[in-house]
Amino acid sequence: MSILVEKGLAGFTIEGIAARAGVGKATIYRWWPSRGAVALDAFLDAVQPLVPYPEDEDFPTQLRVQVTALVRVFRDHEVGGVVRALMGEAQTDPDLAAAFRDRWLEARRTVGRAVFREAQRTGQIRDDLDIETAIDLVYGAVYFRLLAGHQPLSDEFVGDLVDYAVRGLAPSST
Amino acid sequence: MSILVEKGLAGFTIEGIAARAGVGKATIYRWWPSRGAVALDAFLDAVQPLVPYPEDEDFPTQLRVQVTALVRVFRDHEVGGVVRALMGEAQTDPDLAAAFRDRWLEARRTVGRAVFREAQRTGQIRDDLDIETAIDLVYGAVYFRLLAGHQPLSDEFVGDLVDYAVRGLAPSST
Repeated sequence: MSILVEKGLAGFTIEGIAARAGVGKATIYRWWPSRGAVALDAFLDAVQPLVPYPEDEDFPTQLRVQVTALVRVFRDHEVGGVVRALMGEAQTDPDLAAAFRDRWLEARRTVGRAVFREAQRTGQIRDDLDIETAIDLVYGAVYFRLLAGHQPLSDEFVGDLVDYAVRGLAPSST
Repeated sequence: MSILVEKGLAGFTIEGIAARAGVGKATIYRWWPSRGAVALDAFLDAVQPLVPYPEDEDFPTQLRVQVTALVRVFRDHEVGGVVRALMGEAQTDPDLAAAFRDRWLEARRTVGRAVFREAQRTGQIRDDLDIETAIDLVYGAVYFRLLAGHQPLSDEFVGDLVDYAVRGLAPSST
């Protein structure tokens, strides 16, 4: 991860990784098919532990804490630049796109789905929701601001976003 | 636009544009600083008229009709591939990123903001909303699916997304 943060994706060469790891380039290429995929592995290892959902909290709190952590990582740790580079490169590299989906998005969504399903089970959100769309209602806006840069990834944004999304997913008050 | 749809961004060369326009390359470069910016202009001219908000409808209907049109354009007209290429290239091209924000996103948001503000004025959504976050609650999920490709941009998705978002933005029922 340190090379990645120092130099960004463009400076993240197979040669540099091989030198640091003390192995030949062929060894690196055998395990990771492209520069993007190596960056992705480093990224996953570094970021996954930073963005857990807290336990023993209600659903709005779990969501606010997790999205705040994600946004701070994207905003403050230069990781945001790496995600932008990876997702940008993924638009013209189908293998990287598949790796990003499977190893980052799907890994994160597996954790997220369990939280959303538990919120359904406990009646905090509607039980007839499409979970995939409910997840995208929250996280879509975060990735959109990261990639388009039209508005800031501020803590205030997260507070409003989670508020609107939680209201939108809540059971009807009858 | 025809070159763009036939060949995608990678085949969209300054030479090809100059040849079709019957002018020299220097003329093209003078007006558009990069290949991405030329693609952007062609894209804007072609797509803007396809995604209006209908008038004389309530806010949920306006939103559902417009987002359905946008998603169909992204899905069916190969325009989605161009947006992906533009936004992908924008991650490493700050000029293109700025042009994409100003000339596509901001142009679209100017129209969208007026629709959201009218919905506030008529009491269909809360008057204390942050409009920028409210817009991203809807459109973030669309761009996220377009760029990450983890879930389909289906009409069913739009129906659920607009339903959840409209509930999330609605005034509290007191």
